[in-house]
Amino acid sequence: MRKTILTGDRPSGRLHLGHYVGSLESRVKLQDNFEQFVMIADVQALTDNFETPEKITESVYEVAKDYLAVGIDPEKTTIFIQSQIPEIAELTLYFLNLVTIGRLERNPTVKAEIQQKGYENSLPAGFFCYPVNQAADISIFQAELVPVGDDQIPMIEQTNEIVRKFNRIYKTSCLRECQAYLSHAPRLVGIDGKSKASKSLNNALYLSDTPAEIKQKVFQMFTDPDHLRVSDPGKIEGNAVFAYLDAFHPDKEEVASLKAHYQRGGLGDVTIKNILNTTLQNLLLPMRERREKYNYNDIKNMLYAGTHKARKVAINTIEQVRSAIGINYFT
Amino acid sequence: MRKTILTGDRPSGRLHLGHYVGSLESRVKLQDNFEQFVMIADVQALTDNFETPEKITESVYEVAKDYLAVGIDPEKTTIFIQSQIPEIAELTLYFLNLVTIGRLERNPTVKAEIQQKGYENSLPAGFFCYPVNQAADISIFQAELVPVGDDQIPMIEQTNEIVRKFNRIYKTSCLRECQAYLSHAPRLVGIDGKSKASKSLNNALYLSDTPAEIKQKVFQMFTDPDHLRVSDPGKIEGNAVFAYLDAFHPDKEEVASLKAHYQRGGLGDVTIKNILNTTLQNLLLPMRERREKYNYNDIKNMLYAGTHKARKVAINTIEQVRSAIGINYFT
Repeated sequence: MRKTILTGDRPSGRLHLGHYVGSLESRVKLQDNFEQFVMIADVQALTDNFETPEKITESVYEVAKDYLAVGIDPEKTTIFIQSQIPEIAELTLYFLNLVTIGRLERNPTVKAEIQQKGYENSLPAGFFCYPVNQAADISIFQAELVPVGDDQIPMIEQTNEIVRKFNRIYKTSCLRECQAYLSHAPRLVGIDGKSKASKSLNNALYLSDTPAEIKQKVFQMFTDPDHLRVSDPGKIEGNAVFAYLDAFHPDKEEVASLKAHYQRGGLGDVTIKNILNTTLQNLLLPMRERREKYNYNDIKNMLYAGTHKARKVAINTIEQVRSAIGINYFT
Repeated sequence: MRKTILTGDRPSGRLHLGHYVGSLESRVKLQDNFEQFVMIADVQALTDNFETPEKITESVYEVAKDYLAVGIDPEKTTIFIQSQIPEIAELTLYFLNLVTIGRLERNPTVKAEIQQKGYENSLPAGFFCYPVNQAADISIFQAELVPVGDDQIPMIEQTNEIVRKFNRIYKTSCLRECQAYLSHAPRLVGIDGKSKASKSLNNALYLSDTPAEIKQKVFQMFTDPDHLRVSDPGKIEGNAVFAYLDAFHPDKEEVASLKAHYQRGGLGDVTIKNILNTTLQNLLLPMRERREKYNYNDIKNMLYAGTHKARKVAINTIEQVRSAIGINYFT
């Protein structure tokens, strides 16, 4: 039997090339070998966007369209919306009993996020508890593998602690421990060459950008400010164009030779930007074509079917959870 | 239209005379004038009994039987089991976004309970968050009145804060603020005359006790340790027999005259205990008769029907909640 893998995104905007290289690309491959569930995590996204719900709800369809565009195939992958599986909320509540406030406070991922969001003085309880909600996501789908970056490993550990405690206290084996499926993709920088590509910094190339937008952003990219004349030697480090060529150019030898040429001088920024533009247009063209095949109703039907399928799995698990706790009074 | 009132109990054992005088008795009256929902709060009871779920789950039917025994009429009152309304869990999750950890820490009721339970160093997140779950209970049934003692007023305030915040942020009026329906019933002491009657102190008279058990407990009751001979003057203060006579004897003048007699001397403990025994046997006899009319299946069917009815109300509210947040993608 194929192993189950659960992954997903917080829908807080369209997806960009950073998402593609970090995870979307690998999902397209994983769907051939795993039972893959991809969750659009609107409930989780609301924990830090509860005052602007439209930002989240309007992104759900955008994200779904991006999935289809990159080649995630709803025949192979179950794409679903978190909020439409209320069994996750139910399991979250039972999981909250198994975690102490002290343990949640020690979660390094959440600790860092609290600081980053300036939540120290008014930390919403929903945000503070979201790792427990995440543990419920993973457990309810019996996920064996969860693709994460290094920084997310504490979440996997916390999930497994809860699962072990649940199975021990309620004398069951109905929940399954999971493993981190480590992604070693480097974080893609923004077009400014510094920070991580992100919507809020307005420095990302979106999968749904038009050819003209892509070209414009490529030509705005940060290169080497000291590389004034074509004949000057140029720097590769911190040069966004080469970071993107590394991530997306199909021919690694060609990129190595371009780098050497740029470093010794004689290769202009316009030339490398043109090469990158061609590379990205080639990458995005089939995505754009796929995207155009789907209208609003297709997306809605696809999400409905995926959510229906996911919910069946969730219901099966929650029924076992209820009977393990002993609250299956009417069955 | 009749106002909606929501009340209930944590099912952690059979109900006793303290529950009767504090709330059950008034529910029998309230059901004639209000749309009354009575919740068996197993999810809430699990927040501090999650390691011994059988204690809770086995009490659910006992509590339901006690309700029927005292005269709560399932034709007039909707009796239901909290865990069987998963919409409450869903609403709880959205409410958690609207409360800060700091606000939860300041809840005086929970503060006192944390200390009492010795949870300072290992506070389960579920217990810490239970006021939010309670707010969801109240809101999902659109309760206008919630019977509480003075010590529970902070819970009502917290609920209304959350409701106001929800309605404001999501630009809706789908949730309703509630009012405390204050109970002025004194806390009934245990047969030791000191502490509150409770299961853990083994000092309570249960509604389901046999006549022999009632008599035995009445004769064990703490009276006045200095009242050695019948002719001695006796003390009323701290005398459990008189506390129970005050609470349950139908004739207040008779009780006043017994008190005066006891205080001036000449009234023996055996005499007052016999009077109390007769009083309690008279009170409990019709309850016992009612109880015997119901078998296991009757209780199960009654709970099923009540839960089904309550769930319809909850589903109606959660649908409004979902559309206020904007997560009604498929409707």
